Amino acid sequence: MTLPTAEAEVLVPFNDCDPLGIVWHGNYPRYFEAARCALLEAIDYNYGQMMESGYAWPVIDLHLRYVKAIRFNQRIVVSAAIEEWEHRLKIAYAIRDAASGERLAKGHTIQVAVTLPDFEMQFASPELLARKLGLKP
Amino acid sequence: MTLPTAEAEVLVPFNDCDPLGIVWHGNYPRYFEAARCALLEAIDYNYGQMMESGYAWPVIDLHLRYVKAIRFNQRIVVSAAIEEWEHRLKIAYAIRDAASGERLAKGHTIQVAVTLPDFEMQFASPELLARKLGLKP
Amino acid sequence: MTLPTAEAEVLVPFNDCDPLGIVWHGNYPRYFEAARCALLEAIDYNYGQMMESGYAWPVIDLHLRYVKAIRFNQRIVVSAAIEEWEHRLKIAYAIRDAASGERLAKGHTIQVAVTLPDFEMQFASPELLARKLGLKP
Amino acid sequence: MTLPTAEAEVLVPFNDCDPLGIVWHGNYPRYFEAARCALLEAIDYNYGQMMESGYAWPVIDLHLRYVKAIRFNQRIVVSAAIEEWEHRLKIAYAIRDAASGERLAKGHTIQVAVTLPDFEMQFASPELLARKLGLKP
Repeated sequence: MTLPTAEAEVLVPFNDCDPLGIVWHGNYPRYFEAARCALLEAIDYNYGQMMESGYAWPVIDLHLRYVKAIRFNQRIVVSAAIEEWEHRLKIAYAIRDAASGERLAKGHTIQVAVTLPDFEMQFASPELLARKLGLKP
Repeated sequence: MTLPTAEAEVLVPFNDCDPLGIVWHGNYPRYFEAARCALLEAIDYNYGQMMESGYAWPVIDLHLRYVKAIRFNQRIVVSAAIEEWEHRLKIAYAIRDAASGERLAKGHTIQVAVTLPDFEMQFASPELLARKLGLKP
Repeated sequence: MTLPTAEAEVLVPFNDCDPLGIVWHGNYPRYFEAARCALLEAIDYNYGQMMESGYAWPVIDLHLRYVKAIRFNQRIVVSAAIEEWEHRLKIAYAIRDAASGERLAKGHTIQVAVTLPDFEMQFASPELLARKLGLKP
Repeated sequence: MTLPTAEAEVLVPFNDCDPLGIVWHGNYPRYFEAARCALLEAIDYNYGQMMESGYAWPVIDLHLRYVKAIRFNQRIVVSAAIEEWEHRLKIAYAIRDAASGERLAKGHTIQVAVTLPDFEMQFASPELLARKLGLKP
């Protein structure tokens, strides 16, 4: 059984680049966000659907490893893959150059379900996620 | 009668600066935001209080005139002054170098009241604003 | 003679949206930037080419008129059109909903040429711009 | 021997907050940046001084652990402490509520020296860093 993956392509905007002429490291979470939203869209469980189902999924952990500088106007592909889902939603990311496929960065995020509107943390993922992943009927 | 004014000081962060080594023009609205929030705080009508009173005040017009480039680590002072309030809230801004007082940028925003949660536009400002401004009892 | 135009499509990211659930007004300059870069690419005069030619073109004036709130995950089309070029580069923008075509915002930017690396302002646009626009041989 | 530490205070801006009414997780690197700059300023080795000395120090690793949601208008204190310096510059961060001292997030960044302008990675930190840290004469 394979867990879902998705990709987002980004044309690096000028305003993401710093005085060194490279993307400021703190802007990479935006690229992860684009791929994560594509992934959640692909499993039919986007942020709107999460909220309708009574949950939000705040990020509680973020890791980023920068491999090679990314520059203005570079076309990059950000891939996202679900790695854990039972107790928390762990997504792994890789950023590659669209033309060469060279890996530029990697990382992960961990999210946990909280009930809305009281933000109470859930120690197991809601059953709905397993159904969205096709792991439960 | 003088309308209220307020100031916010900003130490320009690295991540606001672009490959030319200057603040990217699209980051200035953040500086205006800091001064606007200080101003609304000063009249005891911050965003939280706005929402509690049943209104939001979205910005419907923004103008920015860039006079001189702003650089990383520069200390700037952003001033905000209410210019109109009866039908819409017009605030004028100036950005100055904290040390020399030299003017670096100016501009304005225009906001209108909308009711919450339906976002219905109000063609006159709610009476509460006049009271907050000390113009009505 | 028609001056060049270009478009950029944006899928509004979560991180551009504020606690009211709409795009924070200060994020719109990013959308203009995407369309401006597409336009400059179309006339073969992107930022890299500007710098190689000895000039930068800082924005000296920005105007934004917000017509209708933009929301997370909305697909928008940002168009950019050159309106003036002889003494300064004035670009007009419109943001529309990709599906309905409804206009959501409009505005303009004005840029002037400065020489690099000394940032000396030029009161006429360099001849290269006219050539890029196909207005001079 | 104690390695240097520094703090930066931030009044959380509206534009850092997302539709859930909390700071979007991808904005925390900005808070780290503010504390890191304060720390580098404190040891007299800010970005300008780095570049003058022939080096840049790109971030190659970032970790963030989100403990408790941060909200608009909350006053937070971001502390930064040097943890490693010989082969790479590792800085640990904590974000606390300014009023209660409650911890809201923690994390680290790892930077390595690269020579300018060729971005060649150095496997030992330049001696200048040790001198700035008061560890070498």
